[in-house]
Amino acid sequence: MPDHAISPTRREDYAEWYQQVVRAADLAEQSPVRGCMVIKPHGYAIWERMQGVLDRAFKATGHQNAYFPLFIPVSYLEQEAKHVAGFAKECAVVTHHRLEVSADGRLVPAGKLEEPLVVRPTSETIIGAMYAKWIQSWRDLPVLINQWANVVRWEMRPRVFLRTAEFLWQEGHTAHATAAEAVEETLRILGIYAAFAREHLAMPVLEGPKPAAERFPGAVETYSIEAMMQDGRALQAGTSHFLGQNFARAQEIKFADTTGAEAYCWTTSWGVSTRLIGALVMTHSDDDGLVLPPRIAPTQIVLLPIHRTDEERARVLEACRGLEAALGAVRSGDEPIRVRTDARDMRGGDKVWQHVKQGVPVRVEIGPRDLAAGAVSVSRRDRGPRERVALPLESFPAAAPALLEEIQRGLYDRALAFREARTVRVADRAELVARFADEGATGEGQGGFVITHVADTPEVAAVCDPLKVTVRCIPMDGPDDPGRCIITGQPVQRPSVLARAY
Amino acid sequence: MPDHAISPTRREDYAEWYQQVVRAADLAEQSPVRGCMVIKPHGYAIWERMQGVLDRAFKATGHQNAYFPLFIPVSYLEQEAKHVAGFAKECAVVTHHRLEVSADGRLVPAGKLEEPLVVRPTSETIIGAMYAKWIQSWRDLPVLINQWANVVRWEMRPRVFLRTAEFLWQEGHTAHATAAEAVEETLRILGIYAAFAREHLAMPVLEGPKPAAERFPGAVETYSIEAMMQDGRALQAGTSHFLGQNFARAQEIKFADTTGAEAYCWTTSWGVSTRLIGALVMTHSDDDGLVLPPRIAPTQIVLLPIHRTDEERARVLEACRGLEAALGAVRSGDEPIRVRTDARDMRGGDKVWQHVKQGVPVRVEIGPRDLAAGAVSVSRRDRGPRERVALPLESFPAAAPALLEEIQRGLYDRALAFREARTVRVADRAELVARFADEGATGEGQGGFVITHVADTPEVAAVCDPLKVTVRCIPMDGPDDPGRCIITGQPVQRPSVLARAY
Repeated sequence: MPDHAISPTRREDYAEWYQQVVRAADLAEQSPVRGCMVIKPHGYAIWERMQGVLDRAFKATGHQNAYFPLFIPVSYLEQEAKHVAGFAKECAVVTHHRLEVSADGRLVPAGKLEEPLVVRPTSETIIGAMYAKWIQSWRDLPVLINQWANVVRWEMRPRVFLRTAEFLWQEGHTAHATAAEAVEETLRILGIYAAFAREHLAMPVLEGPKPAAERFPGAVETYSIEAMMQDGRALQAGTSHFLGQNFARAQEIKFADTTGAEAYCWTTSWGVSTRLIGALVMTHSDDDGLVLPPRIAPTQIVLLPIHRTDEERARVLEACRGLEAALGAVRSGDEPIRVRTDARDMRGGDKVWQHVKQGVPVRVEIGPRDLAAGAVSVSRRDRGPRERVALPLESFPAAAPALLEEIQRGLYDRALAFREARTVRVADRAELVARFADEGATGEGQGGFVITHVADTPEVAAVCDPLKVTVRCIPMDGPDDPGRCIITGQPVQRPSVLARAY
Repeated sequence: MPDHAISPTRREDYAEWYQQVVRAADLAEQSPVRGCMVIKPHGYAIWERMQGVLDRAFKATGHQNAYFPLFIPVSYLEQEAKHVAGFAKECAVVTHHRLEVSADGRLVPAGKLEEPLVVRPTSETIIGAMYAKWIQSWRDLPVLINQWANVVRWEMRPRVFLRTAEFLWQEGHTAHATAAEAVEETLRILGIYAAFAREHLAMPVLEGPKPAAERFPGAVETYSIEAMMQDGRALQAGTSHFLGQNFARAQEIKFADTTGAEAYCWTTSWGVSTRLIGALVMTHSDDDGLVLPPRIAPTQIVLLPIHRTDEERARVLEACRGLEAALGAVRSGDEPIRVRTDARDMRGGDKVWQHVKQGVPVRVEIGPRDLAAGAVSVSRRDRGPRERVALPLESFPAAAPALLEEIQRGLYDRALAFREARTVRVADRAELVARFADEGATGEGQGGFVITHVADTPEVAAVCDPLKVTVRCIPMDGPDDPGRCIITGQPVQRPSVLARAY
């Protein structure tokens, strides 16, 4: 079926394969507005699933949602020096508040603003300005607020989901009375992100602090979750920042403590974005198209009626309706199974391939012969596209949750094995350089994750930069593992993970 | 308790009362960005409830969510002549894509865009451009897509929730093969909006087409739902537009019909916004603050423990926990009751008044004496703030759904009676003018809704304009009721509703 598979394959051209998987799965496409994507219904349904799971986790840990303005006065952005330096180069600037017809009949900007506004690239400064008003005393703390919003960062080399001028995200912003509480919050959220990636996206991630050069502009410490894509590159899938008192000092976010003394708050911020959809695509998909883990798939099971005559059609559709109702009444995890029947009038082969490319975890074909045998033909998206197993129709609904969980676990295990096979420990600089000698990092023995001891110093960056490698994070799990920096010889508490990254 | 009630009262200064109710309920506040509000957690929780109900209704009628760019090239806006005329005067214009430090050390816009971008005031043109690409044949129709998004309209006289530079909304955009299908869609959505207003917001609404001058810029027909606020003014709470082929022709949204002939699509658009929160506030609230109908209230029942000693506190809190669990296990409508315990350490009177002002439908006080009597003290927000009824603790959870429904129905009935008492039928121009003689339209016999026959002509507008009155809509319920226009004498099929409006 060469006309059905994704072209090119991962091996032939990974970057182009990714674009083609996104297109074939109908997730998103470029809009006429430079760098801005349109998230199509199938892509947006995945985002809604992600939002649902994360929103429940945030609320279960005491966070509330709110909404802050899209626009930020330029003077606000300037309040924190590193922050503005980090975002000034790539922001959309609103300078006028109406359009007028010019002498030559064209619409031109009019009504110039006294102070230009920036379309938020992130909201620390505008939210901080409100917190400074809202927080008076220790009784007002902690403030635990999250916002679901769009943000804009003017990307010069946009790439669907991974790097777009506008993207959707959530941004949490919290304020605390003590540094310890703020650090605890930063790590609590990092844990929520890591658990979400593993349990729902079936995506193994490493979690830990990043080196100084990779920190969020204005943060004291940035923690990230890092996943490995199928070309061996790292993708930062979520970040949680301990901001110390940097923003509180810049914005006068103060409170009276229990003794009545005035103190600056300790703040955090954290976010994940529609970039997660790109990560999901690149973690599991194959040369046939998208592969979705069942827990995040908008449709978990699709029923495909097969018939030639009208009489067959009536019987088969009735069986599908019955099966759909039975499956919809079964719970997988804590939700009903998401099942639908695709009764569109089109060639069966084309229809099957649409669902393969859209990544539906389980396809169930039902034809007159299946019905006569009291069976259904079940295909799993994590197996070959032509592989089918006949299962008893009667018992299929009861068996479905275990099947979905098996697929979910299998995808995680496969991704974890993939990462482990491409993770090496290196002992010195020569090994590090050799590992990244080849620019196209997908070959065996090349690229992937490198674990080694490095200090957080410019000397290390000077070795990494020409290799186009960065320190992704210092993974936090497991006991300490001290060693000496392979570049500078300094003592280092734990090894880092280095990789080329998206 | 003069320090607790809202000041001023509705009668003293309705506009200021509204601002104070919003503030006392902690729903929203002005941000430092001109015209942009911050929606605080309590206000946003109400919006989330609205979103949940409407999103389910849209999906149940075959709509899918998607997401389109925030920015619209100016040239797109120009494609439909009336459309651009309607929005050019009040839009945020992005002209640059970075900030640079100028010679005098200030941050100034840099990186001028070749074509300015407008921050979407509505998305017909950018979505239409995508539909023109997506739709090829009758098989691709209908396209039924909704978007939850922020939009910006540069308001010169902003007012929290009612008129803000940035607001949140949903905008549906659909494309159909025939005019009849598009009209049917327009009316289906109008019906969803009207049912939502009545059943969830307890807000009686009139629904029908608007006169030409009040149409959405570019629409063939605009239908709205109109509610009456407590000052007798109308508030347009949702609109559904039949766009005919106006946008399809302007944007080349075409399809091959079943015979292979090419035809323009028929499109619709429709939306409700965070303005609904303002409508909700002004429909039910009283001089003590916000009143929320139970179905839309984030918290339906709040438990208030009362105690003096530590021993009492332990016993009372345990009883609260038990009652909270019992109530949370009861379903009201198709959802569990939303209940929480407010165990904060603060003066009981202040705490009660916070919940009064936040509009919580039912307050339940539990103290040692209540426990000894096996009772709880129940107060309803739709009754006076000091009114309490002792109810048996044991049976309260089972009785709670009926109590909540009674409050819901009572609020609707009260709002409907209010509207009916302030709706009059007038027979001629003199009566119409007399009804709106007084600018402050809250007095008896003044303002409110006027039902009469008027033609959709400039002569009618010339009479209404000096009165600051508009034709709100031509209500569609009930049989035809022909008559003659009270201004021009022309025959008219049905009477209109006229009012001063927000």
